[in-house]
Amino acid sequence: MASEETLIVDCDTGIDDALALLYLLGDPDVEIGAVTTVFGNTDADTAALNTLRVLELAGRPDIPVAVGARSNWRGGSHLASYVHGDDGLGNTNLPAPTAAPSSEPAAELIVRLARQNPGTVHLLAVGPLTNLATALLLEPELPRLVKHVTIMGGALRHPGNVTPAAEANIHNDPEAARIVLQAGWPVTLVPLDATMTEVITEDHQRRLAATGSPVATFTASILDQYFDFYESTVFGERKAACHDPLAAAIAVGDVEPLLAPVVAVDVDTEDGPGRGATVADLRGQYRNFPPQEGATVRVVLETDRTFPELLVDRLCSAAPARRVA
Amino acid sequence: MASEETLIVDCDTGIDDALALLYLLGDPDVEIGAVTTVFGNTDADTAALNTLRVLELAGRPDIPVAVGARSNWRGGSHLASYVHGDDGLGNTNLPAPTAAPSSEPAAELIVRLARQNPGTVHLLAVGPLTNLATALLLEPELPRLVKHVTIMGGALRHPGNVTPAAEANIHNDPEAARIVLQAGWPVTLVPLDATMTEVITEDHQRRLAATGSPVATFTASILDQYFDFYESTVFGERKAACHDPLAAAIAVGDVEPLLAPVVAVDVDTEDGPGRGATVADLRGQYRNFPPQEGATVRVVLETDRTFPELLVDRLCSAAPARRVA
Repeated sequence: MASEETLIVDCDTGIDDALALLYLLGDPDVEIGAVTTVFGNTDADTAALNTLRVLELAGRPDIPVAVGARSNWRGGSHLASYVHGDDGLGNTNLPAPTAAPSSEPAAELIVRLARQNPGTVHLLAVGPLTNLATALLLEPELPRLVKHVTIMGGALRHPGNVTPAAEANIHNDPEAARIVLQAGWPVTLVPLDATMTEVITEDHQRRLAATGSPVATFTASILDQYFDFYESTVFGERKAACHDPLAAAIAVGDVEPLLAPVVAVDVDTEDGPGRGATVADLRGQYRNFPPQEGATVRVVLETDRTFPELLVDRLCSAAPARRVA
Repeated sequence: MASEETLIVDCDTGIDDALALLYLLGDPDVEIGAVTTVFGNTDADTAALNTLRVLELAGRPDIPVAVGARSNWRGGSHLASYVHGDDGLGNTNLPAPTAAPSSEPAAELIVRLARQNPGTVHLLAVGPLTNLATALLLEPELPRLVKHVTIMGGALRHPGNVTPAAEANIHNDPEAARIVLQAGWPVTLVPLDATMTEVITEDHQRRLAATGSPVATFTASILDQYFDFYESTVFGERKAACHDPLAAAIAVGDVEPLLAPVVAVDVDTEDGPGRGATVADLRGQYRNFPPQEGATVRVVLETDRTFPELLVDRLCSAAPARRVA
């Protein structure tokens, strides 16, 4: 990652959010300026507590955590405890955090940091896009203040995961996603097309468990719940997709996509069977994706499928000791 | 094809409709009971005249042709002369037909033949689905009277061809397509996912031109217009997809799909970016597509890509003499 970048991670922690945070925290060159939370995998307040727990596990209680949207544009919130466990972290009962979330609302924090650090903030959003859309309404200049936006979300050539057409982060707030994806800022969208091919397995889990460090032991244990879900619902075997950590690795430049055209992306906000679908214009696929006027969203369609190794290496080598802020 | 089947071809002739008809007419074991026409590639009346021209070229002026819907469920009709030429047949100026269309409307003809031949009619629809939807409204028992329905239409994992999400036949009348795809009868849907991989090339065209028979000469000449469109808009080179002929070959059993799960299929009839999209539930793709209760639509996702050879062989061997009915 470019050293002049400050990362703001917007997440709904969540098993794979925890993996993404621990992946990033394991790189001394990555500067996380703040973490903001949103409803999704769990509620926004639990997501903040879980984020603080994970930060403390990694010895980084100094990173500010701000709570954001507790519901979507329409006032609803669908939570995914069936995927992430009742506590959002695979029912692993990590100790309660000693730190508390910031009193500053997530969207305001995003706007403030972007104003204070023009051209250097990289927004990494791995939950519903409600906080980012709110920040765009608070500060219409945000697209010019922010350096880049990387989003885990959407399904292009791949089926959705909550409906046949829609992926969970986008489906949780299609109206917000449409605002964010059409704001004209440089976005990298990491959809299921890529994340579902980067698969963490029981072999990886065994490696983590054998390592014995607090981070590796924790990540091995949260994978149990995740594998339960993926085995029964998706793959028919004990393995899981690396959604959020892959987006994190792409954001900081550790994973270079093999195919990632810049194309027009719309979000279906109607109430039909396509609600929450990311409608990307991939019609240029037979001509090497010629440029599309006005398009600013790079959609990651293929990666080389070796990321889980990198992720597990990083988690296994995480320092056991707490780092003093 | 099972010899007890009577095929009714519903089409909007059209370059690839003509190829499909000539492909079918070249098989003495295929019985075409009637051809019905609909707006789409061209208007419904021109489609009927073009169908008669093609039938007469193949020596089959005896097959009845009935005109159907001139507009879609909403009263509109978007024609594709930019793809198929002003005359719908690549501006090849085939002689005017000697026969005339039947006075019976297409949907009534479909219902009558289905009632007269219960359990033996196979509907092959390669245009917008307005006639089939109308027939379903005329005769609610139609799903039990008809043996099978094969449809060229839709885009599942593949981009659309008229919008990023929608294929032309479905987009031309999403309301009708929804009625047809949700009628509970056994349907084989042949979407762009399959047809875009079955590609006819300039080599094929040269083979056809060199053969010298009326059918081969005509098909070689109509491909010029088709290649113009595909070169400028889709492939960047002179070749074209075998949409309608592939559906015909699958209907009569000449092509066996490699991957064709039976899944729930909905059609997006909203006015958002997904209008006309075929929303198929492919979420079972990692588990070999487990059965879905109530699903009756087999979606063809992969074929072996050798069909153009079969098509050209058939067109090159078409008998030059007229067959007497």
